[in-house]
Amino acid sequence: MPHFEKHVFICTNRRDDDNPKGSCAQKGSDAIRERFKKEIFARGLKGRFRANAAGCLDACEHGCSVVVYPEQVWYGKVTVDDVTEIIEKHLLGGQPVERLVIKDDK
Amino acid sequence: MPHFEKHVFICTNRRDDDNPKGSCAQKGSDAIRERFKKEIFARGLKGRFRANAAGCLDACEHGCSVVVYPEQVWYGKVTVDDVTEIIEKHLLGGQPVERLVIKDDK
Repeated sequence: MPHFEKHVFICTNRRDDDNPKGSCAQKGSDAIRERFKKEIFARGLKGRFRANAAGCLDACEHGCSVVVYPEQVWYGKVTVDDVTEIIEKHLLGGQPVERLVIKDDK
Repeated sequence: MPHFEKHVFICTNRRDDDNPKGSCAQKGSDAIRERFKKEIFARGLKGRFRANAAGCLDACEHGCSVVVYPEQVWYGKVTVDDVTEIIEKHLLGGQPVERLVIKDDK
């Protein structure tokens, strides 16, 4: 069975374009997932780390939302340009990227 | 931000019907996700536990595949009829449902 050191879930929920709540997919989360997958593969990290699309993670106001397990670190307002830093600092280095972590009071 | 005691991810990946590998969606994983969501809500457990669809979890041969975080317990060949037991024994009781756990040698 799989055993991932880190498992990254990217919300790819899409709502109708006229929904005032918006959605992570509208904000570009599919591209974030793609970048994670490609970069994990390109760095030879497949098997250690995995990135998956997920349904609505209930953090819509912070989208694009990403959660990393097993530590359940939540990231908000993630962009494609943040992916390399998350992989290098957090997945490989074990240190969450603090500037992207959703704070408890938000 | 959300903080889930248990976060359940159900593979809902769908491949073409003629793909010999099959897929969790073909085996009924959408109904499993629905059952988790409905039962968590009906029991007043929303906020403590969450069930989400996920892309391919890389455990296709065990589908329908489900993984529970933060402990990363993997379940295989899950059916709709197993959902209540997983909620009661594992999510609420803290004991994985051993008969469904994917073994290391499988």
